[in-house]
Amino acid sequence: MQQIFHEIKINTKGQGFYDFTSKTLSWLSEQEIKNGILNINILHTSASLVIQENADPDVLYDLKFFFDKLVPMENKLYKHTTEGKDDMPAHIKSVLTNNQITLSIKDKRLVLGTWQGLYLFEHRLEKHTRVLSHHLIGS
Amino acid sequence: MQQIFHEIKINTKGQGFYDFTSKTLSWLSEQEIKNGILNINILHTSASLVIQENADPDVLYDLKFFFDKLVPMENKLYKHTTEGKDDMPAHIKSVLTNNQITLSIKDKRLVLGTWQGLYLFEHRLEKHTRVLSHHLIGS
Amino acid sequence: MQQIFHEIKINTKGQGFYDFTSKTLSWLSEQEIKNGILNINILHTSASLVIQENADPDVLYDLKFFFDKLVPMENKLYKHTTEGKDDMPAHIKSVLTNNQITLSIKDKRLVLGTWQGLYLFEHRLEKHTRVLSHHLIGS
Repeated sequence: MQQIFHEIKINTKGQGFYDFTSKTLSWLSEQEIKNGILNINILHTSASLVIQENADPDVLYDLKFFFDKLVPMENKLYKHTTEGKDDMPAHIKSVLTNNQITLSIKDKRLVLGTWQGLYLFEHRLEKHTRVLSHHLIGS
Repeated sequence: MQQIFHEIKINTKGQGFYDFTSKTLSWLSEQEIKNGILNINILHTSASLVIQENADPDVLYDLKFFFDKLVPMENKLYKHTTEGKDDMPAHIKSVLTNNQITLSIKDKRLVLGTWQGLYLFEHRLEKHTRVLSHHLIGS
Repeated sequence: MQQIFHEIKINTKGQGFYDFTSKTLSWLSEQEIKNGILNINILHTSASLVIQENADPDVLYDLKFFFDKLVPMENKLYKHTTEGKDDMPAHIKSVLTNNQITLSIKDKRLVLGTWQGLYLFEHRLEKHTRVLSHHLIGS
């Protein structure tokens, strides 16, 4: 049983979904591990991880719209406003989605459905560099 | 340290909760692994996984009702409407809940609270066959 | 590859966030495992787990406020009311957040961002003893 650690960095340019499936797959293809667990953690609390449909981009549009409506960027709604009107909504959206996802690797393939992609969901308006910790354990 | 993969299929008949705890336990009881990690992934983006109370069915009724109200099935709210009025709400509910859960096995028992059950939360109106990937790693 | 199980108990005194990061770190520091996976499960369905900012306490205040507004404690909204006006909202908040989190340990350090803390999110009004199962697998 082996363990390998890796970081994937994603430069975001404002709110929205950033597909990192191919980055993860590319790194996985270089590893010797055939079967195992892949634990992915985002090391931030104002962006999150989502597994969602990779077919119709309108799905991602509607998702972003839904979360923006559910968690409005209005300073009067929050106490924590010093970091900008988008910061507290970002924390809430992060809690409503995921900080981490745990995936299975079988025969060197990521166990995902046909229409499932891995997305970073950026909640901040400005650009950020987001670090996704990858930890593979298997044989 | 061993690894075993398995799929559990669940035929859903419309929206609601489908308890699969006994299916998972039944498969686990046939395995030699005594202690380990069980990673369960649903390979779809319009149904999800939830750990919830298995005592009072009203809890599941209220949960379904809450999510239906929070994410209405009204085409005018969404751009992605080609797959039916229930499809985009299904994706959103999926993001608000879980695509995957990671459980611990200790002394051949699933580490769960007394009142915790494993549920597939179906968000589509029509019937579907849902695949739950099970991956056990342990010794 | 070794496996170790542990339970951390937290006595809650009403709704809110309880930081258990130091309890988890303290236990981890006593273990021989240098690299591995830490799976944490809360064995209850009316309290949950959240990774969030540990810098400004206002973030936790706003998070609690948001969830209380999204899921009101009003009996008329629910069928499941026998356990108190806070019980059904507690189940819903639990589903909207997390029952479990899976973390990576690298070189004896928990892989977390600088501003990330581990929180128990208590949703009930009365005091409770909450059990967090810790399962470490690694070498």
